[in-house]
Amino acid sequence: MLLFRHCPEFTSRIGLLKTQRFQPRPGAASALAVCARWGSSSGSDGGGGRDSGQYLRGRTPSWSHLFAGLLAGTGAVLAYSLHQNKAERAATTVQPVCDAHKFPIYSQEEVKKHRGLAEGVWVTYKGGVYDITDFVAVHPGGSKILLAAGGALEPFWAMYAVHNQEHVLEILAEYKVGELSPEDQRQEATTCSDPYSNDPPRHPALRVNSQKPFNGEPPSEILSENYITPTAFFFKRNHLPVPKVDPGTYRLQIEGLPNGPVSLSLEELKSRFPKHKVTATLQCAGNRRSDMNQVKQVKGLNWGIAAISNATWTGARLRDVLLEGGYAPGGTTHHVQFEGLDKDVTGTTYGASIPVGKALSEEGDVLLAYEMNGEALPADHGFPVRVVVPGTVGARNVKWLGKIVLSEDESTSHWQQNDYKGFSPATDWDTVDFKSAPAIQELPVQSAITQPAEGAVVDRSMEEVTVKGYAWSGGGREVVRVDVSLDGGRTWQVAQLRGGEEEEEEEGEERQVNVVSPPPGRAWAWKLWELTAPLPEDARELEIVCKAVDSSYNMQPDTVAPIWNLRGVLSNAWHRVRVTVSED
Amino acid sequence: MLLFRHCPEFTSRIGLLKTQRFQPRPGAASALAVCARWGSSSGSDGGGGRDSGQYLRGRTPSWSHLFAGLLAGTGAVLAYSLHQNKAERAATTVQPVCDAHKFPIYSQEEVKKHRGLAEGVWVTYKGGVYDITDFVAVHPGGSKILLAAGGALEPFWAMYAVHNQEHVLEILAEYKVGELSPEDQRQEATTCSDPYSNDPPRHPALRVNSQKPFNGEPPSEILSENYITPTAFFFKRNHLPVPKVDPGTYRLQIEGLPNGPVSLSLEELKSRFPKHKVTATLQCAGNRRSDMNQVKQVKGLNWGIAAISNATWTGARLRDVLLEGGYAPGGTTHHVQFEGLDKDVTGTTYGASIPVGKALSEEGDVLLAYEMNGEALPADHGFPVRVVVPGTVGARNVKWLGKIVLSEDESTSHWQQNDYKGFSPATDWDTVDFKSAPAIQELPVQSAITQPAEGAVVDRSMEEVTVKGYAWSGGGREVVRVDVSLDGGRTWQVAQLRGGEEEEEEEGEERQVNVVSPPPGRAWAWKLWELTAPLPEDARELEIVCKAVDSSYNMQPDTVAPIWNLRGVLSNAWHRVRVTVSED
Repeated sequence: MLLFRHCPEFTSRIGLLKTQRFQPRPGAASALAVCARWGSSSGSDGGGGRDSGQYLRGRTPSWSHLFAGLLAGTGAVLAYSLHQNKAERAATTVQPVCDAHKFPIYSQEEVKKHRGLAEGVWVTYKGGVYDITDFVAVHPGGSKILLAAGGALEPFWAMYAVHNQEHVLEILAEYKVGELSPEDQRQEATTCSDPYSNDPPRHPALRVNSQKPFNGEPPSEILSENYITPTAFFFKRNHLPVPKVDPGTYRLQIEGLPNGPVSLSLEELKSRFPKHKVTATLQCAGNRRSDMNQVKQVKGLNWGIAAISNATWTGARLRDVLLEGGYAPGGTTHHVQFEGLDKDVTGTTYGASIPVGKALSEEGDVLLAYEMNGEALPADHGFPVRVVVPGTVGARNVKWLGKIVLSEDESTSHWQQNDYKGFSPATDWDTVDFKSAPAIQELPVQSAITQPAEGAVVDRSMEEVTVKGYAWSGGGREVVRVDVSLDGGRTWQVAQLRGGEEEEEEEGEERQVNVVSPPPGRAWAWKLWELTAPLPEDARELEIVCKAVDSSYNMQPDTVAPIWNLRGVLSNAWHRVRVTVSED
Repeated sequence: MLLFRHCPEFTSRIGLLKTQRFQPRPGAASALAVCARWGSSSGSDGGGGRDSGQYLRGRTPSWSHLFAGLLAGTGAVLAYSLHQNKAERAATTVQPVCDAHKFPIYSQEEVKKHRGLAEGVWVTYKGGVYDITDFVAVHPGGSKILLAAGGALEPFWAMYAVHNQEHVLEILAEYKVGELSPEDQRQEATTCSDPYSNDPPRHPALRVNSQKPFNGEPPSEILSENYITPTAFFFKRNHLPVPKVDPGTYRLQIEGLPNGPVSLSLEELKSRFPKHKVTATLQCAGNRRSDMNQVKQVKGLNWGIAAISNATWTGARLRDVLLEGGYAPGGTTHHVQFEGLDKDVTGTTYGASIPVGKALSEEGDVLLAYEMNGEALPADHGFPVRVVVPGTVGARNVKWLGKIVLSEDESTSHWQQNDYKGFSPATDWDTVDFKSAPAIQELPVQSAITQPAEGAVVDRSMEEVTVKGYAWSGGGREVVRVDVSLDGGRTWQVAQLRGGEEEEEEEGEERQVNVVSPPPGRAWAWKLWELTAPLPEDARELEIVCKAVDSSYNMQPDTVAPIWNLRGVLSNAWHRVRVTVSED
């Protein structure tokens, strides 16, 4: 999008280029997602979302819908449902290969010449040649689409399963201008493979939100059964294929240190620095996004309430590693950037950063973790090394850590600049300015009900109902109270909290379990909670609600709509579950 | 109350003692507030509130009301309104002095013998002798009442103006058992004086919530007129009389340092340590308590939205002073306690503590401040030295600082242990356990509308409405956005924020003012905000609402009822103002 901003002649050129197309359909609403990343646009383009929105303004509403749907990246289900009707209505415009004689034949060499807005943007797909120049400005992934210019779409589409849908092909078909020569088709076929072929097997109980990249959450009742989430059930949130890393040759690169770059083997990381253990809850910024979707469709994976889990992490303290490398506070370093070894087809790695104060603080407990729950990190969680930034949104806990860069600036990655930010419910894709909001770091106070489930039936003869759940807050703020309501928030009862470290106390006849509080500002792990309360008389239905309070006495907002945001992040309104009371 | 817990024979004794009374009225509900502190009971009694609540359980509901009202301490207006009806109904039982002959005459010596539950608790007031033994257990101020045992009530009542109400005298009259001998009455008269006689003059524009001790807030529209609140308008929240401190002989005592105690003169504090300046907003935990009172009556001063102000503070860093004194981290010090020089009649000083991590942190910016807005601290704000704990509730910013104690434990003061804590809306004075909640330190995100005022009339011909206000969050979390609604929260617009440090930027034709963000976690000062929006067509009334978001993306809760708490603290729901649109 940055490209367009500096390219004022773009709009007028569109008209020109259109006439060069083999079968131009002026004004037709078309969409094609070549490289739909998580979010809206490339890493270096802060205003991407806005600009494409401005271009879109004035088009039909269905366009913005389509735009939002495809932007979901891996949100295949979402995008599909949005366009199912359209697909059903549309006469099929897919051009089968047997129609080849209707189109001119182009060589790969010829296609390669069309790699920019001036000369036109061409791509190939399964032997077809497509002039997508017109589509660039409305591409959900922003200017990233230009990376495919002059070449094949297959490696990009293999990266993001969202493209594997009929209506995406329909849209593509509208841009067809020719056929690739049979010779070049043969060559191309050999270069395509599934980048996800290295992904590890996953537990079948996980609810899969996207297969490629893999994103899955455990059944929510499992969360409150274990204070430490079993690794197999720990939610998995990947942005890209799981990289295969050889621990023997693995090196962690550190740049920006005063004494020059540092390179550490896994063995050095384990042996040269004290081994620290931290119990920390990680939560995806999109946890409970499904609640926002019920208010109004948002972009992103439709997470339930279980994109949050708790584990023990063991590793070297980032602080120790940086200090050994000669880092001295007080310089121009304001951020510590992390780069993963997971890459997209263009070679761009996942990236994020945190403020240097958090990274260096003795009380920050930031780890370069090589163990999870007492075992080597599993492939899905960053083997061999990931950053664990306790109290901070999952997205900054970079997995498969390849590089650390000390910098004056935040990471320039897409996920730091143009995603994982919160906006007003008033902000839409036409008006969003990603530069106007800070990157999410600490998360706000959160809680949810894991039991009973929505729609469950409670037996009247039981006389009591037991409600369970989790509660957590970012920034090391301890959850100090959870209130539970059985009547939709009219009256409240205080739940019993359960922490990790507990001590038993004999007091007279009673045996008391006290939760031991961590030091102020270092409560990195969640609290599980439970309330057993008499079933309200006469109630035939209960609206069970929970809300948590953290040590800064921050509370959860009551309702979803006023915190709704176009990306569906930070969904932390009171959690509500409706159950029926059976009179049998 | 601690007394009662260790005194199991107390309840049975009550019956016994009752029979010794001159005019016993068994079962009559009576109340008397001898030493109604802020809150419920003495500083060393964590369970005070609960214990007296348990004693009260089973009595008539009007009792708990009375209890709550008097506990308000300086909430004279509140208490008065609760009992006005009672006063109107009651036949006057006040015994004028001319009735003296009806009562036996006691010497001061005889009164002095009744200083405990065993021998009875007697007090004198304006020549009358009262046996208040029966009242001790239901005294709103807890066992503190025993401090007056055997002596005069006047010095205690002079401390707390809440007692200067007719119905308090009515209640007292029920306990009358005799007259003080004329000789002792003369002596007593000379020992009584107004402890508030040293209090400084205040700006007449302040809205006074209590005169003695002085508690006042500025007109709220003044807040948003000045980024730095003029000192005269800075809200004033005193717990006790303003002490008169001679700066020449002033010493700050520091205890708990490894090399022994330290004593610093004002001059030493100014000359031996670097002078630091911090702009920090202070907010009373009870700010916006009036919103909670609208849901259900709470205990405490009925603050509006202006118990918050912003100033620059200059002084030595607490960190520097403690480190110079030999403090080394890692020991058993977990808290830094502060004692004020302001005292009640028993000599008990105001006190509070903060976690040592905050006190010692380089980024914590805790000051031993001797200047406010560039001038010596005024008497009402702690002359000559106060602690400024940025991002932390006002109550820990101890004024007239006399002593600092490094300790393993929190301050044992009443205000740390049995006040300034948050509870569930389900918690009442019968069930509250002050030990179950953490002392308020960092405050949650807050905002309020200062303009237009509630009930204002907006002229339709203006076509626009301008809304102004403030927003702030505790813990150094910067306010990153304020949403404003003109329709009660259905739709929102983003307000323009105004910070302290701003830089102007020329961009093309436009001149932009950018708010410069402080380092992460060190945003101690508020943001002022403003929104000018078109008047909604056809709207005859606007419900203007604001809500702020801080850098941890914490949001304000929507409504007051679910965060209501018996002490009326932490009132940070969306602020709402209703205005009328005039069609003239």
